[in-house]
Amino acid sequence: MRVRYKPWAEDYLKDHPDLVDLDGQHAGKMSDWFDKVQPIHIEIGSGMGQFITTLAQQNPNINYVSIEREKSVMYKVLDKVKELQLTNLKMICNDAIELNEYFKPEEVCRIYLNFSDPWPKKRHTKRRLTYQTFLALYKQILAEDGAIHFKTDNRGLFAYSLESMSQFGMYFTKINLNLHEEDDGSNILTEYEQKFSQKGSRIYRMEAKFHHQ
Amino acid sequence: MRVRYKPWAEDYLKDHPDLVDLDGQHAGKMSDWFDKVQPIHIEIGSGMGQFITTLAQQNPNINYVSIEREKSVMYKVLDKVKELQLTNLKMICNDAIELNEYFKPEEVCRIYLNFSDPWPKKRHTKRRLTYQTFLALYKQILAEDGAIHFKTDNRGLFAYSLESMSQFGMYFTKINLNLHEEDDGSNILTEYEQKFSQKGSRIYRMEAKFHHQ
Repeated sequence: MRVRYKPWAEDYLKDHPDLVDLDGQHAGKMSDWFDKVQPIHIEIGSGMGQFITTLAQQNPNINYVSIEREKSVMYKVLDKVKELQLTNLKMICNDAIELNEYFKPEEVCRIYLNFSDPWPKKRHTKRRLTYQTFLALYKQILAEDGAIHFKTDNRGLFAYSLESMSQFGMYFTKINLNLHEEDDGSNILTEYEQKFSQKGSRIYRMEAKFHHQ
Repeated sequence: MRVRYKPWAEDYLKDHPDLVDLDGQHAGKMSDWFDKVQPIHIEIGSGMGQFITTLAQQNPNINYVSIEREKSVMYKVLDKVKELQLTNLKMICNDAIELNEYFKPEEVCRIYLNFSDPWPKKRHTKRRLTYQTFLALYKQILAEDGAIHFKTDNRGLFAYSLESMSQFGMYFTKINLNLHEEDDGSNILTEYEQKFSQKGSRIYRMEAKFHHQ
């Protein structure tokens, strides 16, 4: 997502240390930050936050963590969390590559990746969130039966991710090659998805797990 | 494929025992049947044979085996083999489930599955050629680095196959989610594909291998 820089966003986020971790102060003790001990689900690259705030509202028995590195986007997630008075959603402002600094091994039950940057150029392969270095991080923090739920409108990224994940030793428990035609009503739209699916773009989705010997 | 029964087809096939195995007479010694010792590639469900006969013509250094259970379809493959005077293509008239009767472990280097019957009803899952019982057969006869090349226009069968194969411990080395848009010119069309792609149907393709510990 191309983002317009908003100089005031950092101060706004800093004013809510109960909801936003800007400097890693909760690293290694994320579970303690929540009121209740419940399963943790995270979203990497939350964008404007419609997806994860809707989930948090629907599932009070799950603790959610929204990870987004762009402060100028993240403030919109904060807006929603405040408006909905959510107590089961915390935010981390950092790069995905730092994930294992925040979460202990097997602390996370589910990872959502929605409309991640496709990085279509071959020389940028390593930046894709389904590249092997990221998969290794996910494997480390995910509980043994934990899953990655991934959706995108980018055909190339989806095909790449199926290859990369299966080569890394993952398997797929559910695949939709045209989500909006196959949806049973349970799909929660992101802002981006809402906009682009109205234009008729096909959305791809998968649920994936790690093989454990 | 719905097939009109052709009573004369069996006699026609019987008249060419040098090309067609109707009763398993080459079971267990397929390699000996060919003039030259070369890698073996097989196609399961060859239909009218355009795909495998084109390949056989283009690659004289590969031995091909066409497997098709419908005699009333297979005679068309035989027509083409005779017309092209192919010496590197043999035919087996039998069910895919009998594969390991014909081939020794690791005797096959590549398996092609093209536009296999999708068996869309859930109660027919076990009949799909990417169901686990078939994958177990393929694993047995495929050489260690051997691959399955699969294409279909059926979205449901493709999604199912990605799930089933990854769950069985396979990985994907190449995936096309819209083959005819992404093709580099190397795709060989089947008769079915030619007909349906003209109507704008999307074709899905993958190359898959088995993880070996």
